[in-house]
Amino acid sequence: MINVAVLGYGVVGSGVVEVIRKNNSSISKKSGQEITVKKILDVRDFPDSPDRDLLTKDSEEIFNDKDIHIVVETIGGAKIAYEFTKRALRLRKHVVTSNKELVATHGPELLQLAKENGVHYLFEASVGGGIPIIRPLNQCLAANEIKGITGILNGTTNYILTQMRREGKDFYQALKEAQQNGYAEADPTADIEGYDTCRKIAILSSIAYNEFVDYNNIYTEGITKITPVDMEYAEELNSVIKLIAFSKRAEKKIIAWVSPAMVEKSHPLATVEDVFNGIVVKGDAIGEAMFYGRGAGKLPTASAVVADIIDIVKHLDSGARNIWTVTHGNNVIPMGETFTRYFIRLKVRNFEEAGKLVTRAFGKVEWVKAAADRAADEIAFTTCRDAEKNLQAALGKLKGTGSIKEVASVIRMLDE
Amino acid sequence: MINVAVLGYGVVGSGVVEVIRKNNSSISKKSGQEITVKKILDVRDFPDSPDRDLLTKDSEEIFNDKDIHIVVETIGGAKIAYEFTKRALRLRKHVVTSNKELVATHGPELLQLAKENGVHYLFEASVGGGIPIIRPLNQCLAANEIKGITGILNGTTNYILTQMRREGKDFYQALKEAQQNGYAEADPTADIEGYDTCRKIAILSSIAYNEFVDYNNIYTEGITKITPVDMEYAEELNSVIKLIAFSKRAEKKIIAWVSPAMVEKSHPLATVEDVFNGIVVKGDAIGEAMFYGRGAGKLPTASAVVADIIDIVKHLDSGARNIWTVTHGNNVIPMGETFTRYFIRLKVRNFEEAGKLVTRAFGKVEWVKAAADRAADEIAFTTCRDAEKNLQAALGKLKGTGSIKEVASVIRMLDE
Repeated sequence: MINVAVLGYGVVGSGVVEVIRKNNSSISKKSGQEITVKKILDVRDFPDSPDRDLLTKDSEEIFNDKDIHIVVETIGGAKIAYEFTKRALRLRKHVVTSNKELVATHGPELLQLAKENGVHYLFEASVGGGIPIIRPLNQCLAANEIKGITGILNGTTNYILTQMRREGKDFYQALKEAQQNGYAEADPTADIEGYDTCRKIAILSSIAYNEFVDYNNIYTEGITKITPVDMEYAEELNSVIKLIAFSKRAEKKIIAWVSPAMVEKSHPLATVEDVFNGIVVKGDAIGEAMFYGRGAGKLPTASAVVADIIDIVKHLDSGARNIWTVTHGNNVIPMGETFTRYFIRLKVRNFEEAGKLVTRAFGKVEWVKAAADRAADEIAFTTCRDAEKNLQAALGKLKGTGSIKEVASVIRMLDE
Repeated sequence: MINVAVLGYGVVGSGVVEVIRKNNSSISKKSGQEITVKKILDVRDFPDSPDRDLLTKDSEEIFNDKDIHIVVETIGGAKIAYEFTKRALRLRKHVVTSNKELVATHGPELLQLAKENGVHYLFEASVGGGIPIIRPLNQCLAANEIKGITGILNGTTNYILTQMRREGKDFYQALKEAQQNGYAEADPTADIEGYDTCRKIAILSSIAYNEFVDYNNIYTEGITKITPVDMEYAEELNSVIKLIAFSKRAEKKIIAWVSPAMVEKSHPLATVEDVFNGIVVKGDAIGEAMFYGRGAGKLPTASAVVADIIDIVKHLDSGARNIWTVTHGNNVIPMGETFTRYFIRLKVRNFEEAGKLVTRAFGKVEWVKAAADRAADEIAFTTCRDAEKNLQAALGKLKGTGSIKEVASVIRMLDE
């Protein structure tokens, strides 16, 4: 019999208890041993919960219990969760988590600690919710050198962008409705500014390249500036706008960024809509593979946590093997040195003059037809592929000129 | 050091040797031991191969070599491969295969034999080529009760259907071009008649429900009757026609079939084009997840074989745990008892009479607008959801009537 303790009885924590209870016979059969939730830690009271007899407010009851083999940490954040995780690992308890902030911040240390203590530290649920992605990267694609990862990793922003495109809503209206429908939190900053996506691509990159990628080094741009007008231009370019997490091996360093991007409709990620997530992995042998599903939610996320628990029970004897090399200095190539194409939309006073300025600044561009009602004062174009710093410099030349009123939009184009 | 022998130096076998050689350092690092190909068995001569020193025509050299720990079987078929696999397992050598025919035919016996001998029998590459699907089903989704699987499992037929839809080609023209492009074999029967897809859904179902599903019991219909005209009607129904493998738990039995089907464009499988495969898995906790990638090809398939090898090396001490229960009698529900909707297209002599006959036979139907040039002698409609046997009976009433010349098409509609 394997005893599990769950730290934090929130959405994911209570989902874990629910899944273990509901599918207990098949879970126990698959793992070869009976799995039971012995204790749940939460400072709150849940007098009506079916799990009230398991709940405790005293963490010592869990850490001092030698019969608790696996600790599930669903507290979130990188403070108490960090202390509890270290303590559990040092007590040779395996730890499973859905906490992307903790993994993205202290992953190398916690993996090392797990290895030293002969236990596992697993975090499938920290990226992609229920979508199996970490285990496939670690195991199924183990024969591949991973070349790159491109993904839609945040359901909230994907829902907002889908609503904006389909219904022509503006960003704040779509956000408000997402909040009303429970798809966005009261404070949506982490989602809409791309911070959530940034931590997830940092974790995926660390796994793919077996080298810690610090999320602080990843250029991150959110979706708050995207407008329904941009969506119309995307349509004209046979594309859709998505919040893209991009990561790629580049010789000895890593390219990684989070940004809204124009994605051509033939790209597999273009069809990932609503709250769904999609992750495209490029390997040298497999070519491209995509993983698709619900990136969040109580039961999908709990399902990923429980899969980690089963994996541990099947391999109790072996501890964590994978640790992340920590590179001194920044292993992420500065954004200015990376290459891309821009879509740019300008409000102009004088078409001819503005056109000349654009060509002088960017060289050859491709002009994009403006929607009829905007043709009066707008020009739009896509640039050639160039280093970000060159594109930014060219953009600088357009500002503060008499013929150009305003740079209305600058959106990257996903072109690899 | 772990020594591997590869049986069969064809496309997949040579790919396995190539991947192990090319990514040797990272593969050895991930598995914790150096992995080497020690011998390759093939009856043919390969005087110019870089692997010629490893090649042998004598299987005894492999079976008698106690230092060979893992045997990779890429011979194909269920005869010699079957004998060699049994022999290797009895000699306590782990076996990895890409051979779907063997797994679909003798899976339960070989898994049992592996278990008895404390070794692994793994076959990730037998379904979905390089797409990780068997390991995700077994491990990542282990916390779920799998409710069903719907997939596009054959790249050749998906390529042909994509060409027919995009270019308006007829089936035989598209097949011929697929053969010229190397996407279809000289004898394409196994692909175009759905036999390949049938074996794959049998394997996936056996894993998902942990109970052997005999492919002989699975209703299987190929794509040879599909015409460009059907594609136009599909467009009218905002759908595309795909060769669908369907499987679902139905109380104590299993529903499983292979058939062309109308798939609505909003369905994730509708966007799986060309030689790509896609597999949607429904679990009680995760909801829907999709796996997408190249379902065939030398390196993608080899990548799946090598992932199995790495998995074995990481867990050398533990043998196969999963065996498939074999049910006496047929555990697949007869096709006539399953429920679906039909799209039906008729060539008629008398519109009004034919319309009345249709309504009398099927009750309420939804009429589908015919393309302009066919409106002269065609009517088309979709039926309500009903048991196949009732739909077939109703269809029988339309045949041999004066007002209806011919039942031109009957195509299932994927409606769950």
